[in-house]
Amino acid sequence: MKLTEFGYIKWIQSRLGKKSKDVLVGSGDDAAAVHCPKGHILLATTDTIVEGIDFEPSRHSSRKYSGFATRIRPEAIGHKAVAVSLSDIAAMGGCSGPLYALITAALPKRLANPAFGHRLFNGMRRLCKRFNCRIIGGDLSSTTGPLVITSTIFGFSDKRKVIKRSGAKDGDTILVTGKLGGSILGKHLSFTPRLKEARYLNRKYKINSMIDISDGLIADLNHICRASKVGAILDEEKIPISGAARRMTGSVIKHALYGGEDFELLFTTTLDEANEIITDRNLTTPVSIIGQIGEVNGIYLKNGNRKMKIKPMGYTHF
Amino acid sequence: MKLTEFGYIKWIQSRLGKKSKDVLVGSGDDAAAVHCPKGHILLATTDTIVEGIDFEPSRHSSRKYSGFATRIRPEAIGHKAVAVSLSDIAAMGGCSGPLYALITAALPKRLANPAFGHRLFNGMRRLCKRFNCRIIGGDLSSTTGPLVITSTIFGFSDKRKVIKRSGAKDGDTILVTGKLGGSILGKHLSFTPRLKEARYLNRKYKINSMIDISDGLIADLNHICRASKVGAILDEEKIPISGAARRMTGSVIKHALYGGEDFELLFTTTLDEANEIITDRNLTTPVSIIGQIGEVNGIYLKNGNRKMKIKPMGYTHF
Repeated sequence: MKLTEFGYIKWIQSRLGKKSKDVLVGSGDDAAAVHCPKGHILLATTDTIVEGIDFEPSRHSSRKYSGFATRIRPEAIGHKAVAVSLSDIAAMGGCSGPLYALITAALPKRLANPAFGHRLFNGMRRLCKRFNCRIIGGDLSSTTGPLVITSTIFGFSDKRKVIKRSGAKDGDTILVTGKLGGSILGKHLSFTPRLKEARYLNRKYKINSMIDISDGLIADLNHICRASKVGAILDEEKIPISGAARRMTGSVIKHALYGGEDFELLFTTTLDEANEIITDRNLTTPVSIIGQIGEVNGIYLKNGNRKMKIKPMGYTHF
Repeated sequence: MKLTEFGYIKWIQSRLGKKSKDVLVGSGDDAAAVHCPKGHILLATTDTIVEGIDFEPSRHSSRKYSGFATRIRPEAIGHKAVAVSLSDIAAMGGCSGPLYALITAALPKRLANPAFGHRLFNGMRRLCKRFNCRIIGGDLSSTTGPLVITSTIFGFSDKRKVIKRSGAKDGDTILVTGKLGGSILGKHLSFTPRLKEARYLNRKYKINSMIDISDGLIADLNHICRASKVGAILDEEKIPISGAARRMTGSVIKHALYGGEDFELLFTTTLDEANEIITDRNLTTPVSIIGQIGEVNGIYLKNGNRKMKIKPMGYTHF
């Protein structure tokens, strides 16, 4: 069965749920209109995922890591499309109220069927629902190439509570949520954006800088360091390694340092706050202290007496 | 020369201009942050353009209309990517303050060179500047397929001043800016979004419903009719025909009715307001009265004594 453009849009609109009071104009007009709460600022982010680069629609295989191939569910693609942007909102410290999503897809003809289209959307909707994110518009297009999905997510936040990359201070402790490495084995498609954790940390603690790990621990720590004009020393033994990283061939620590797409939160705060955070029982996601910000030039990896400077490599698209 | 991902981002960032007071966080963090003016609502829209569907990067040729082939400039692609979204904001009646843009591109390797990348961005920036639209973020990706660009544009508007598709009333006069048809000959790439006109009309008159013509006059009028639960009667002789539509082979009126991508404003208001609008000397863009909203079922085309029902066909992606 073929999926028609207007048929698909109608089907999606019928599943967007009842209009909420904050949404003045939802899907079906030229633009969406949303109520702005008083004294807030708007946070907005956009991300594109591309078939063959960020996911493989029928079979997922990695050129880097052999021996791995599995079917990918359309829901997982929809999930990832939205999750990457939600993760960016988390990295800013999250929003106070609901979130809003605009989603576009350039759909190849071979995927313009209800089986794929409906499941793709279901994957988006399920994750959006979980984080009180309302899909309020989008755009559908066709393509002769791979599937391309762009999600734009925005919401409102207290101005004083926006956590930037540039706030890391000399002496700050570096922390990370969850475990790192090996996301290519599945987590990069199914990860939970750390919105809940970000909001909680932002409300209860004074977080100086934060980023989500998409390019890799080192590459993203480097983004913090450059924006904050500081350096960092990581403690190799304290970096939390995922089971997936251990199952992969090659150096386990390298997977954790450079793997990318962990979508965990990397952040800095004072040592006192850091010590409170790692013993905070309200945080069900584990948080680890992995190093310290310092006035060094670049990023160093420490292991006992050994200390070596490491290159801020990460994934690059071209 | 190759364009690297981070090199391109750096180059773009160096050209985004000084940060303005309303932008708290611009390009270079996980999300952008923008000041919300008091008592306003947020208008947001997103559009995707795809190489081979919405434009051809090296040669532009149409399967529908033969005898036409010309080189397309990268600036024109950038222009169109942003213009389509600006046109959507116009169709809602425009915003009061500055606009903001988030732009993503999935760039094929063959186009990842400075000659293309820089000129693509210049086309976006030039149009954004003209309409006080600040580019505050985006995402770059690679693709094995055609170039895909998504622009998301938002801004703030007075709540009472949002013009929806659903406000057309029985007896309303139907008006359109500019001239219609034949945009495939060039206008679809170089058009000026009718933001200035929309803002002026919205400020000075009581516009009941509005849309921008992207799918074609009939298809978009049908969107207004369905959203407003009304019908329409168009006066064939009053439809403003572009010179391009006349130069094309085939029925001239069909090009004007179904051509699409005119990106003119189609709107309805009372007859009194309509008569004032068409003689308003402050409007430098011509505005024409082309018909009337009525409680008929569907859309009719009238020419002298002839009156026939017409099908709301338009471009569909799949």
